[in-house]
Amino acid sequence: MIYLDNAATSFPKPEQVYVEMDKCMRNYGANPGRSGHKIAIEAGRAIYKTRELLCRLFNIENPMQIVFTANATESLNLGIKGLLKEGDHVVTTSMEHNSVARPLTTLETKGISTTFVGCDEKGRLRLKDIETAIKKDTALIVMTHASNVVGTLMPIGEVGAIAKKKGIPFMVDAAQTAGVFDIDVQEMDIDLLAFPGHKGLMGPQGTGGLYISQELDVIQMKEGGTGSSSENLLQPAIAPDRYESGTPNTAGIVGLGEGVRFILDRGIANIRKHEEELTDMLLQGFKEIPGVKIYGLAQPKLQAAVVSINIGQGDSGEMSYVLDKLYGIATRAGLHCAPLAHKTIGTFEQGTIRFSIGYFNTHQDIEAAIQAVRQIAAEM
Amino acid sequence: MIYLDNAATSFPKPEQVYVEMDKCMRNYGANPGRSGHKIAIEAGRAIYKTRELLCRLFNIENPMQIVFTANATESLNLGIKGLLKEGDHVVTTSMEHNSVARPLTTLETKGISTTFVGCDEKGRLRLKDIETAIKKDTALIVMTHASNVVGTLMPIGEVGAIAKKKGIPFMVDAAQTAGVFDIDVQEMDIDLLAFPGHKGLMGPQGTGGLYISQELDVIQMKEGGTGSSSENLLQPAIAPDRYESGTPNTAGIVGLGEGVRFILDRGIANIRKHEEELTDMLLQGFKEIPGVKIYGLAQPKLQAAVVSINIGQGDSGEMSYVLDKLYGIATRAGLHCAPLAHKTIGTFEQGTIRFSIGYFNTHQDIEAAIQAVRQIAAEM
Repeated sequence: MIYLDNAATSFPKPEQVYVEMDKCMRNYGANPGRSGHKIAIEAGRAIYKTRELLCRLFNIENPMQIVFTANATESLNLGIKGLLKEGDHVVTTSMEHNSVARPLTTLETKGISTTFVGCDEKGRLRLKDIETAIKKDTALIVMTHASNVVGTLMPIGEVGAIAKKKGIPFMVDAAQTAGVFDIDVQEMDIDLLAFPGHKGLMGPQGTGGLYISQELDVIQMKEGGTGSSSENLLQPAIAPDRYESGTPNTAGIVGLGEGVRFILDRGIANIRKHEEELTDMLLQGFKEIPGVKIYGLAQPKLQAAVVSINIGQGDSGEMSYVLDKLYGIATRAGLHCAPLAHKTIGTFEQGTIRFSIGYFNTHQDIEAAIQAVRQIAAEM
Repeated sequence: MIYLDNAATSFPKPEQVYVEMDKCMRNYGANPGRSGHKIAIEAGRAIYKTRELLCRLFNIENPMQIVFTANATESLNLGIKGLLKEGDHVVTTSMEHNSVARPLTTLETKGISTTFVGCDEKGRLRLKDIETAIKKDTALIVMTHASNVVGTLMPIGEVGAIAKKKGIPFMVDAAQTAGVFDIDVQEMDIDLLAFPGHKGLMGPQGTGGLYISQELDVIQMKEGGTGSSSENLLQPAIAPDRYESGTPNTAGIVGLGEGVRFILDRGIANIRKHEEELTDMLLQGFKEIPGVKIYGLAQPKLQAAVVSINIGQGDSGEMSYVLDKLYGIATRAGLHCAPLAHKTIGTFEQGTIRFSIGYFNTHQDIEAAIQAVRQIAAEM
């Protein structure tokens, strides 16, 4: 099988992720932060180590400002709902995933309004439109770092600067970029960074995180046992305990740490370069096939390693099925949980076939994908 | 090391849990429920299989009524907060863990009041007190199935019957019982069952679940991509999609499925019998040591495999440290995230040393624990 569905979850993971998770479960699978015995402490240390590695990757000062969650969706819900109050206004974009758009839509019933700034048909955002959308009561700017449909990179550094100037908290959804593109929360003025553990960071599913700036008072989503201030029926006020009630996903977080370690060892620039090369190759190949329409910028340096196409008027789901069934190529078809983005690029009805590249893909994989699409297009 | 901290998390897990998780991550580590390619479908099927196994264990009719969460704490927060509205009244007990007590305390600020029904110093609940506590606006009865401090089993079947008669939803926290004691949501009139995946169910950390009766309208805690109704900015109304936004913990859920399979294969009665025998042995041993005070009923048939003691006036944390350091015995000391329970049994200041037994403990483990406590007590 040729796996080109890395935007959904990266596969495979680095060998050390599997190995260390297994080792954690077999050798120090205790509950961290509760008991004080040796393997409980070892589990706690391993979790802290992952916080430190993520700090290095994102230039976060204090490891205690990283909150572990089950996935980026939980991180986004926590940040968005924990920050906003009745009467607040939010600025976001028309390229967002449902993990941003659905919480904001739900909050409308609670008196929180949102402006979805329209992007162009390539998914590009105009900075001026962000500035225009800001109102007196804008309490949050939240946006994706790169579209999960067409990969278009957003100018988050520039938006961060605008947000900082206006004193508005800035939240970034790094679902498609964490682990591949440079993210520096200090330099980019990011106050809330939501990231999945199982995509570019190469950790297992069931992991994710949220960086919360010390300046913000974000209300927790859950209360419960934290292993700290146990005598108190009120949730502890300190991070990360405030946000991490209940037993954490220890082995998962250990695996995430190994994923991040792998990235730091290889060098994020090298990982990006490899994905960029393959994206370039895929785009060049598709451009030469009659009947194939490529969406987005189709410029590897300006996008994440995500390529959306359609073949003639063919149903995207059917095409994706044929790619899997006849060619053994795994892609994803449809709306990719991002209906607003598909409306923006004009594919709300047809959807697209999405090829998403990961670090472990090879030139041969890309060649096979091009060949397959060429054959399918020729037979239509 | 002798691990007697199974109430925090069971350790080790059955071999098949490690093996199948590794296999899942290496062979079908795709994102379930999103794409339609082979390994995405295989991942989706594996998750559904775990739902089916849990249905067999808890006598749940429809697998779609089981919602996967990160832990029992999340399940409890989801059920409690998703159900209650301003003006509602809740009945619970004085033996609850902070995972129940803290959400309810937080909800007080939103106009939701709680009656904590007092239990006796052994942790026993009087049914009459539950009946007396019910008011006209009581919208939920929520309680633990067994104390995590002293193990005392609660009469959940009887409380379920009272709740049913009064038309009040009944929620059970099965953190200390799922996988060891019989739980039948239909026979016990349980409307919401919160369970951890990583304790008695023998799955990995990072897993848990909530059974939600089809009769109830529980509001979701998070919105986001569900892989279903992607065109809609409103969260889908159907379970489990409504509650399971974002990528699930696939390998974790697969591991949980193997844990449940192991339990069904061995027979839950056999597992319980083994734990009961060891609990009996531990209690008998402790009873004969001068200076050791045992809390709770000290009757193996009426409690989960959790034994809390103190040795003279010794600090529980210090004793637990000595057990670990000098004897290699892992226990947990302090308040066990259940301050109300410690107030009830009279150990709020001193805490207790908790020995919690699991299926993989042996007679030798228990003998060693008794010997160690005997020596420590003799030297005090």
